[in-house]
Amino acid sequence: MNIDGCPTRTIRLAADGETVEVIDQTRLPHEVVVRPLASLADAAEAIRTMVVRGAPLIGVTAAYGLALAMREDASEAGLAHAVETLAATRPTAVNLRWALDRMAAALGRPEVNDRTAEAYRLAAAMADEDVETCRAIGVHGAALLREAHARTGREVNVLTHCNAGWLATVDWGTALAPIYVAHDEGIPLHVWVDETRPRNQGAALTAFELRQHSIRHTIVADNAGGHLMQHGRVDLCIVGSDRTTATGDVANKIGTYLKALAAKDNGVPFYAALPSSTIDWTLADGVAEIPIEERPAREVTHMTGRAETGGIVTVEIASPGSPAANPAFDVTPARLVTGIITERGIASASTAGLAALFPREAGRVKARHG
Amino acid sequence: MNIDGCPTRTIRLAADGETVEVIDQTRLPHEVVVRPLASLADAAEAIRTMVVRGAPLIGVTAAYGLALAMREDASEAGLAHAVETLAATRPTAVNLRWALDRMAAALGRPEVNDRTAEAYRLAAAMADEDVETCRAIGVHGAALLREAHARTGREVNVLTHCNAGWLATVDWGTALAPIYVAHDEGIPLHVWVDETRPRNQGAALTAFELRQHSIRHTIVADNAGGHLMQHGRVDLCIVGSDRTTATGDVANKIGTYLKALAAKDNGVPFYAALPSSTIDWTLADGVAEIPIEERPAREVTHMTGRAETGGIVTVEIASPGSPAANPAFDVTPARLVTGIITERGIASASTAGLAALFPREAGRVKARHG
Repeated sequence: MNIDGCPTRTIRLAADGETVEVIDQTRLPHEVVVRPLASLADAAEAIRTMVVRGAPLIGVTAAYGLALAMREDASEAGLAHAVETLAATRPTAVNLRWALDRMAAALGRPEVNDRTAEAYRLAAAMADEDVETCRAIGVHGAALLREAHARTGREVNVLTHCNAGWLATVDWGTALAPIYVAHDEGIPLHVWVDETRPRNQGAALTAFELRQHSIRHTIVADNAGGHLMQHGRVDLCIVGSDRTTATGDVANKIGTYLKALAAKDNGVPFYAALPSSTIDWTLADGVAEIPIEERPAREVTHMTGRAETGGIVTVEIASPGSPAANPAFDVTPARLVTGIITERGIASASTAGLAALFPREAGRVKARHG
Repeated sequence: MNIDGCPTRTIRLAADGETVEVIDQTRLPHEVVVRPLASLADAAEAIRTMVVRGAPLIGVTAAYGLALAMREDASEAGLAHAVETLAATRPTAVNLRWALDRMAAALGRPEVNDRTAEAYRLAAAMADEDVETCRAIGVHGAALLREAHARTGREVNVLTHCNAGWLATVDWGTALAPIYVAHDEGIPLHVWVDETRPRNQGAALTAFELRQHSIRHTIVADNAGGHLMQHGRVDLCIVGSDRTTATGDVANKIGTYLKALAAKDNGVPFYAALPSSTIDWTLADGVAEIPIEERPAREVTHMTGRAETGGIVTVEIASPGSPAANPAFDVTPARLVTGIITERGIASASTAGLAALFPREAGRVKARHG
């Protein structure tokens, strides 16, 4: 997608063919800074500190992280150490594990002579594959927006939570991909952007993305969505996912569950858009089984932004001395999810629905467990 | 309640017997500043800019505002102008209207010789009455916490949204009054404090209050409550109200409805604590009939706090150029409310429940409409 009119990816290889470059998302929306990752440590740090974030982009960054690691130590031990280091960076997103498993299996094959070259080749392929997957999610999801517009004859109001846009992937995004595709088709759209406390990915990243593409949008506090739905101002919700169970439970940014409850209470369709790499086929009960990352209290008690003097300043916004808790994700039970938009089409949020689109993946785990 | 160990009210008369003094709540939690109100204009400005906020405190401030106005112009026209000016400051809280109607009726009686003296006398009586009302709410509500502790044998976890503590009233508070009374009885409590975007009254005011009274608490993003309830970490919710219908629908700070939905979905009792002055006996459908104040977008896009240098700084946190919307309240339908804690006891959130506790008020309106 575009920044200032220039097509851009969130992650790419530098001119030297070895260094990896990422957009530093902790500096957005105030500055567009490209950050070089030159080592395993750099890649792990970038994921942990959320320089890159979003389940699909975390997966591709981990793949490139393994490539950087192979330059340092391409031995069995080096590979195992790198996989372990990268896997420990974020606990909830399953794409991280998925990408590492896939890379490790490929690099572990005896016929691989040059692990470094193979790792770079595979990481690049995964990046390209992510773009194609997200584009397909966009095409399938855009049908929902087209139908909503045909039904109402007016601008379609979509509510989204957090950032599952192109900044969360390599390009296109997941939840925002249908919006970009539908916008390009000329369907009139307006997006309610949840600011998404505590890290404000909605106000900072989703709003930035949408403005760069001239898509009408309005930022609201996370608290506002229920009120908007009560008054008929939301036609459908689309969110991303960091991990989805084989039964259709959706782990996503904290607060997603509250919006799904409001959607249900007001008859508003609620969709999760995700690549199948986000589905953890081994899980059946999201609330019980998906580990929820607890992030630093400071993300709640402090806030960073641009002061009137132009400088980037961090201010304490909470009452000093009071403790804070910061669970980063929650789980929306499948019963609240109208459908799951994947690269192969839209599935019902159920074991049968997902298995119908992904029979091989669903069957493999069933065989292993059965 | 206390600030630094000293019993304090949010509003009081200055030593000169004429000027009104309030705690400037826009400066909390970083500074405790007492602000003098010397005129009608001062009082209206204090309400509009939320120097004072919280439905009960707004009501008492409006009463004192009329007293200040009578010093300037005690004529019929002066009284009408003052009522109109103060009524226009905030549209959602009904206590404002209630206090003004009550004052205007009393000051309009032919036997009143000195309207200024009478206005001061009546405003002081309303302040004292508010304290007594809130204390009674605390006593009735504390029974719920006592029962929860008796049932579980452990610390009781209460979730609250916004600030309905003593800072929202003259003293004691509404939603927090039961917590203060139960804490004083020795019941072990822990409060989950919703930060309450966009103005952060939870993180700034509720956390400040609770810390001043050594009550265990943890600030969380507004997004977190559903997740906490899914995992059994909330025993009950108590919130305040800015306007309640005769049928038990509760208008309160934006986001309250989302917490009520999560409470219902997880079997967590959800209470609203309010003085009967908050009940609008003329309304039956909160979502359709209660006007919701739309506040400035800047409250969403900018945030004020203390910088590391010690100064109070406002920073822009949203992507520049993106619009924001800021509805300040939402309505929680009575079907989601377990009970309404009033100064006369706990009522079911229904026409019958409220009328049983307040037969005179409910009957008067019925007679007028019937």
